[in-house]
Amino acid sequence: MPIYKAPTEDVLFLLTDVLHWERYGNLPGFADASPDVVAAIVEEGAKIAEEVLQPLNLSGDREGCTRHPDGSVTTPKGFKAAYKAFAEGGWVGIAAEPEYGGQGLPYTLGCIVNEFAAAANMAFTMYPGLSQGAIAAITEHASADLKKAYLPKMISGEWSGTMNLTEPHCGTDLGLLKTKAVANADGSHSITGQKIFISAGEQDLTDNIIHLVLARIEGAPRGTRGISLFIVPKFLPDAQGKPGARNAVSCGSIEHKMGIHANSTCVMNYDGATGYLIGEANKGLNAMFVMMNEARLGVANQGLAQSEAAYQNAAAYAKDRLQGRSLAGAQSPDKPADPIIVHPDVRRMLLEIRAFNEAARALMLWTSLQADVARRSLDPKERQTADDFLGLLTPVLKGVLTDKGFDNTVKAQQVFGGHGYVGEWGMEQFVRDARIAMIYEGANGIQALDLVGRKLPKDGGRALTAFLGEIQAFVREHEADAEMKPYLAALKQGAGHLQQATMWMMQNAMARPENAGAGSMDYMHLLGLVALGYMWARIARAALVKKAADPASAASMEAKLIAGKFFAERMMPESAAHLARISTGAETMMSMKAEMF
Amino acid sequence: MPIYKAPTEDVLFLLTDVLHWERYGNLPGFADASPDVVAAIVEEGAKIAEEVLQPLNLSGDREGCTRHPDGSVTTPKGFKAAYKAFAEGGWVGIAAEPEYGGQGLPYTLGCIVNEFAAAANMAFTMYPGLSQGAIAAITEHASADLKKAYLPKMISGEWSGTMNLTEPHCGTDLGLLKTKAVANADGSHSITGQKIFISAGEQDLTDNIIHLVLARIEGAPRGTRGISLFIVPKFLPDAQGKPGARNAVSCGSIEHKMGIHANSTCVMNYDGATGYLIGEANKGLNAMFVMMNEARLGVANQGLAQSEAAYQNAAAYAKDRLQGRSLAGAQSPDKPADPIIVHPDVRRMLLEIRAFNEAARALMLWTSLQADVARRSLDPKERQTADDFLGLLTPVLKGVLTDKGFDNTVKAQQVFGGHGYVGEWGMEQFVRDARIAMIYEGANGIQALDLVGRKLPKDGGRALTAFLGEIQAFVREHEADAEMKPYLAALKQGAGHLQQATMWMMQNAMARPENAGAGSMDYMHLLGLVALGYMWARIARAALVKKAADPASAASMEAKLIAGKFFAERMMPESAAHLARISTGAETMMSMKAEMF
Repeated sequence: MPIYKAPTEDVLFLLTDVLHWERYGNLPGFADASPDVVAAIVEEGAKIAEEVLQPLNLSGDREGCTRHPDGSVTTPKGFKAAYKAFAEGGWVGIAAEPEYGGQGLPYTLGCIVNEFAAAANMAFTMYPGLSQGAIAAITEHASADLKKAYLPKMISGEWSGTMNLTEPHCGTDLGLLKTKAVANADGSHSITGQKIFISAGEQDLTDNIIHLVLARIEGAPRGTRGISLFIVPKFLPDAQGKPGARNAVSCGSIEHKMGIHANSTCVMNYDGATGYLIGEANKGLNAMFVMMNEARLGVANQGLAQSEAAYQNAAAYAKDRLQGRSLAGAQSPDKPADPIIVHPDVRRMLLEIRAFNEAARALMLWTSLQADVARRSLDPKERQTADDFLGLLTPVLKGVLTDKGFDNTVKAQQVFGGHGYVGEWGMEQFVRDARIAMIYEGANGIQALDLVGRKLPKDGGRALTAFLGEIQAFVREHEADAEMKPYLAALKQGAGHLQQATMWMMQNAMARPENAGAGSMDYMHLLGLVALGYMWARIARAALVKKAADPASAASMEAKLIAGKFFAERMMPESAAHLARISTGAETMMSMKAEMF
Repeated sequence: MPIYKAPTEDVLFLLTDVLHWERYGNLPGFADASPDVVAAIVEEGAKIAEEVLQPLNLSGDREGCTRHPDGSVTTPKGFKAAYKAFAEGGWVGIAAEPEYGGQGLPYTLGCIVNEFAAAANMAFTMYPGLSQGAIAAITEHASADLKKAYLPKMISGEWSGTMNLTEPHCGTDLGLLKTKAVANADGSHSITGQKIFISAGEQDLTDNIIHLVLARIEGAPRGTRGISLFIVPKFLPDAQGKPGARNAVSCGSIEHKMGIHANSTCVMNYDGATGYLIGEANKGLNAMFVMMNEARLGVANQGLAQSEAAYQNAAAYAKDRLQGRSLAGAQSPDKPADPIIVHPDVRRMLLEIRAFNEAARALMLWTSLQADVARRSLDPKERQTADDFLGLLTPVLKGVLTDKGFDNTVKAQQVFGGHGYVGEWGMEQFVRDARIAMIYEGANGIQALDLVGRKLPKDGGRALTAFLGEIQAFVREHEADAEMKPYLAALKQGAGHLQQATMWMMQNAMARPENAGAGSMDYMHLLGLVALGYMWARIARAALVKKAADPASAASMEAKLIAGKFFAERMMPESAAHLARISTGAETMMSMKAEMF
């Protein structure tokens, strides 16, 4: 049976020693999140993940969801009770507005608990996770009446939310969408169309399901400028605000997927269902983007989470499994063989995962702190910089953490040999579950295009310039410190490659936009690599300080310093290859005629 | 529904124009394989793969195998008829000895057809594939009586073969194996023990199953020097050589696996089963290695095969799926959107797969030709060089073709977006099936160790020196040709990095063997990359010649020249990163205490 222990110590180290949580104490809402409160929340989040969600992961995958002939869907055994515990713990609304019953805590704390939950049971977290995105979109864009009618029940977890974008003929290209909205006399709309790949579209966990649906109002302009966003509840609220009449929306089927079997991925049919417009007509994509950006960070977190869960199991197995002898001579001569952790290539696999995970977690928290600052700071300049960073890093986190997170589950599976390929150890489930994170909420190629096409050139490249400036300032500040050298030398070189790649993009994308597209994936991974290298430099600095100040922490800080060095030596060299690929441009790939593929 | 068309044109181009098949005409057995015969065999092999095997791939995965309470196993619907057609076509014994009913054709031809079959239905090909390995081991090591009793029925496909190495506590480290053999008065042995992960261990396709089982004869030395190999038939042949009394071997359960569901992976219980020693007592590993080396090339072929099948589907989808517009302006203005093949990043994914596949196929054929030369040539020097190359490249092909083959199925799945994650397009099956190839027949980390620990230092590095020499000679020969420059420049640089890495290994592995282990995976991939780059240089040369000589081939030759250029520009730069990682050695990874993982 797979294991999972939430990395609470690492999280608290990152918040306290690396990111200096105390410096954010003056932000509205952060006063309620004193170090003690934070530690308590982290512990409670770990507990529900480890004790309630994780035990249902393997069984949920095996059982999957069942759709019945009447269109209802049953989630796996135990999910109902687990969901109840999760909702009653206040976890759905941890960062939501207190006005509607939310806890109003920093977004960053929600991110931490979401990592734990997604590591313990990714399919489960899709249910409350989609609700959180829907809550954010409604909070930001819906009318006061709609907020009052829907937010409290959604924040408490009694009702859930979903996100309905994709149709059979369009996913990425939402301009093609056909779902129709016809205005009714009472101000509502009648929604008709089919949506596919709707995560948590139908389930038996909540009393009501609030679908956020993109549709085209009759007579609206073509393309993306004619799309509106609607609330379409499964049950229309009655006069008391309770689930009343059944709305004309139903689950037509559930998908047979590679993974996340315990989440119901539905075909949803809207047959003149009653819907309520969120925000302005034809500006639905703007409102949906609130949900999508939130969801993208959530998906990035899933990549890290699966990587962490897979690592823990692989590390435990490598210390336990006896097979072969160390190249340096028997390490456990009293046993029939040495544990496989003695083998360099096993350590390579484990350290590649570990060196990614710790920096990815730091980057996730650093970025979610930007989200908090962008939302809460009273200083407009500070808000702007934070918003720049958040915009720049969101596609990078989504793309890089899910690509690498998936690769890492594959590596962890490899540590198990043949036992990784069979079901009972749970390793192949991590791979199957992690795979979807590279696809949904915008396939990673779309994240890369968003980065090079929108986020990078925006405001004359202000965000990237500021990000590189922050890295260079850090390097300068610590360059004299001999102990920091291994971390800073690799970072400096990587940042240099990023700068060259950026220059190349600026010089060549204008003349031929395909040059930007051709290098977009490498650019995203190069930026991700440098961002992770920057996080390692900050972690190393904090570890050196803590090790000196607190001898009890020496062993765990030493482990961080080794993992960071491994990252610098073995993972940063990829930056040169990214630059080389980017610099070749689009010419060769575009010269192949379509019919020759 | 997924598609598959065997790449017959590419195969014939490689045999004729790149590898110069006609030059091997003087090898014994090659006289029967004139160009006409080869073309006919390739066409027939394509036909059975496309028409018989491929239509059962998706359904076989969904249905899987069923074990019944009596221990019998039913394969998926249609497999019995398909197997009959495959066996009756003579495909099992295509390269086997004519003396026992084989066709005695070059091994290379068997490899070609195995690629087609494995692309069409990987789970299916495990049944005849294991037989081919068992046939090779029996042919090389068993007594004349055993050969006579077993080979004809196995070569005809009436009986099948399996390979029993792994036990619950040992896979890689066979020295730990416990299965016991006790000598009987009649010269046979009684075999007792449990074997796991036995592919095709029980099935309903053949009249008998011939298990090749590693066991320890009572009183044998400990470790790998006390292991013997036995034939343990499911039914003991009677006086007429037909399946007689049921032997005490049975399938205890079948595994619930990530993929290759249509192949039964069995726990096999031996309860005093009658077995017949193959070759000398305590030298079982030598005999089994014949089977394993053959199987390793077979598994390498599976990696390529899944990559090819996945590519074909992704390319077709990319040309068909309309989504978004080209960055260079609408390409299909009459349609609601452009096909996604217009997007550079989609092309990048497709070309990464394609540029790998074509070179990997060339390398597979080049290496299998070495196997033919090593076995058949009358010139001892020629045999030696071919055997050196075969030994050197076998772990590289197994490791690199399955690692990259798997990565490529993931990329091809990505082209489909959400449609890649659901079952009906078959893309997620390619990923799940391809994954096992990185694990079985020696996990890829073991291949890498075999390479740097055994194959590389053997005979003072003779094999690698000869291989690099061949590459350098090719570069010198064509360096003056301007059209060859893009291909040769990248190859030259890559070969230089390989040379430096080899030097580093020689200088540092002696003092600390862990330095070799720490860089083994990168070294294997570096050697693979250079070998593929060498194949691209040869393909490019052949394409330039053919394009000039035969205008009808111009378009397809041009496509090869583009794919090769893409390989040089985008894939060869990885050689520097491999070298950088190798040169960091083992120090950092070994400095982490085991308990800190």
